[in-house]
Amino acid sequence: MKERKLYDINAPNASTGIINGESSNVLNWDDVRFNWAYPMYKNMLANFWTPFEINMSNDRKQWPELSSDEQETFKKIIGLLAFLDSIQTDYSSKVADYLTDSSLAALMQVLSFQEVVHNQSYSYVLSSLVDKHEQDQIFEYWKHDEILLERNNFIAEGYERFVEEKTPQAFIESVVYDVVLEGLFFYAGFAFFYNLARNQKMVSTSTMINYINRDELIHVNLFAHIFKETLNENPELDTKENMQFVTDTFKKAVDLEVKWGQHIIGNKIDGINMNELEDYIKYTANKRCKLLGVDAPYPEIKGNPLKWIKAYKEVDEGKSDFFEQKSRQYTKVSDTNGFDEL
Amino acid sequence: MKERKLYDINAPNASTGIINGESSNVLNWDDVRFNWAYPMYKNMLANFWTPFEINMSNDRKQWPELSSDEQETFKKIIGLLAFLDSIQTDYSSKVADYLTDSSLAALMQVLSFQEVVHNQSYSYVLSSLVDKHEQDQIFEYWKHDEILLERNNFIAEGYERFVEEKTPQAFIESVVYDVVLEGLFFYAGFAFFYNLARNQKMVSTSTMINYINRDELIHVNLFAHIFKETLNENPELDTKENMQFVTDTFKKAVDLEVKWGQHIIGNKIDGINMNELEDYIKYTANKRCKLLGVDAPYPEIKGNPLKWIKAYKEVDEGKSDFFEQKSRQYTKVSDTNGFDEL
Ligand SMILES: [Ca+2]
Ligand SMILES: [Ca+2]
Repeated sequence: MKERKLYDINAPNASTGIINGESSNVLNWDDVRFNWAYPMYKNMLANFWTPFEINMSNDRKQWPELSSDEQETFKKIIGLLAFLDSIQTDYSSKVADYLTDSSLAALMQVLSFQEVVHNQSYSYVLSSLVDKHEQDQIFEYWKHDEILLERNNFIAEGYERFVEEKTPQAFIESVVYDVVLEGLFFYAGFAFFYNLARNQKMVSTSTMINYINRDELIHVNLFAHIFKETLNENPELDTKENMQFVTDTFKKAVDLEVKWGQHIIGNKIDGINMNELEDYIKYTANKRCKLLGVDAPYPEIKGNPLKWIKAYKEVDEGKSDFFEQKSRQYTKVSDTNGFDEL
Repeated sequence: MKERKLYDINAPNASTGIINGESSNVLNWDDVRFNWAYPMYKNMLANFWTPFEINMSNDRKQWPELSSDEQETFKKIIGLLAFLDSIQTDYSSKVADYLTDSSLAALMQVLSFQEVVHNQSYSYVLSSLVDKHEQDQIFEYWKHDEILLERNNFIAEGYERFVEEKTPQAFIESVVYDVVLEGLFFYAGFAFFYNLARNQKMVSTSTMINYINRDELIHVNLFAHIFKETLNENPELDTKENMQFVTDTFKKAVDLEVKWGQHIIGNKIDGINMNELEDYIKYTANKRCKLLGVDAPYPEIKGNPLKWIKAYKEVDEGKSDFFEQKSRQYTKVSDTNGFDEL
């Protein structure tokens, strides 16, 4: 694949293709290849947040009152997220180099930036709750925990292939791994935090997780757009085999995510039933597959089995509002307001 | 030079060198190589802004009342900035790949993100003032204007060398070109907007330019840190020849910037004297050279000759405050409050 040039005096501003095209690389938002790009950019900026906005003092008080299982799971999830968001920052920045349109590269830069903020939130949370030594240990869980290793290797290998072999086929495969990472592998962990929050525990951390979740939903949409436009412009990639690859990858990913769910949640966390969590993981995989244009791999799962999960419907629907969201508070979590988005 | 690995299970989180070191690539802000990195990160986040915050209706009303020279200069400067910030987005993202410490890569991602916002501000301003056809033309000035071409080629060649040949020597040279771009080549243009603003013209556009200027000051500091740490850790690069390279590059850059200043400002813009502008350019070059650890190339210039330029002293000094700056208004421009920072 052709890397986007630093500048090209003979090329137009709007690129001639999503990959392997020509582009001046000068960004004029009113002259770009895809009309969904600018609204998505505006949405991403509207979602700006920083961990500094969030006061950790209540969480700090509640931390010693969590059960040791809850503390253990909390730390493992943060350890997982720290690893995944770190490699995600780099993967997205490498993807940016191969998207010909400067507006898509720009979206990818905004995404990388958001991953940086997510990463910082993990240091920020841990430094409020545990001592420096324990924080450093948690940041190394990914090196030792076997279930974590297996799961992370699954993604990392999908990314590595694209990093090493820059072909359109490796590219679209890596995008599927991305949608697994951002659209599935975070979700058992997210559910744990939402469950804490609905029990009025660790609400600040959960608010941060919710902001991260909101960002991830847009990331998933962005990568799904990229996947579908790449197939559309390169019909030789739009094959049965590649559709099957999506299904197979998500099925493997679901197995890993369920295993991880059993490891961190199982039957030891009050309020989360493991069978429901498994269905929730499958429900989420169905949504991501449909977004990529593939049939649901688990047609028996019809709706969200974790009704209590607070969702941010307006974000999915592109109705976010900058100033309103700035002051959004995490106050509406209840058993009754569950809707069907996460 | 070694590209930072996606992840490295055998390496520590804090890297073993600024370039060509080892790093797990998992970012724990409380375990990074350089203690200036986290405060700088916080500062960059604190400076978050978006063009959408800025209401362009007054500028739109004033636009037809500008002299044709003012309009022409306004458009040329925006055309210049659009090109430079576009290639800057990509250059900084490539630099990120070769900084071993994940915190420095993160800072570089934040910087790239800010360039994306700067770029968007140029579309935003132009789409408020001129029709789509004229906007598209302005985004192509860099392809035709000879003085612009000469100036842009100077930077782009410095960057291209690093893009093509990834050696530590090409790297530090490209960093010097970066400091020229972000610390000098924007400044005649900035002066033009500050001069409009002190005459109560185009205050919204000038506010945006001021936000951009505030960001650029941090970028220059970041690249200066990278330059000095790289020389410090790689003494074979800390040579008389490289110090001379800084001086020579800035002298060439000053000549090009003065030529550009004559082209866009000369004696046709009320309120800016070309001799003073030339001294201001040299004054700025002196500051940047000193920041890089090199003697001032123009020792005869003692202070800022454009006393009226509104400066953001607190940013230089790291005293920025997130919520305060959010509502900062551009109201204090006067002949008397000039201090010596820009
Ligand atoms: Ca993400
Ligand atoms: Ca810049």
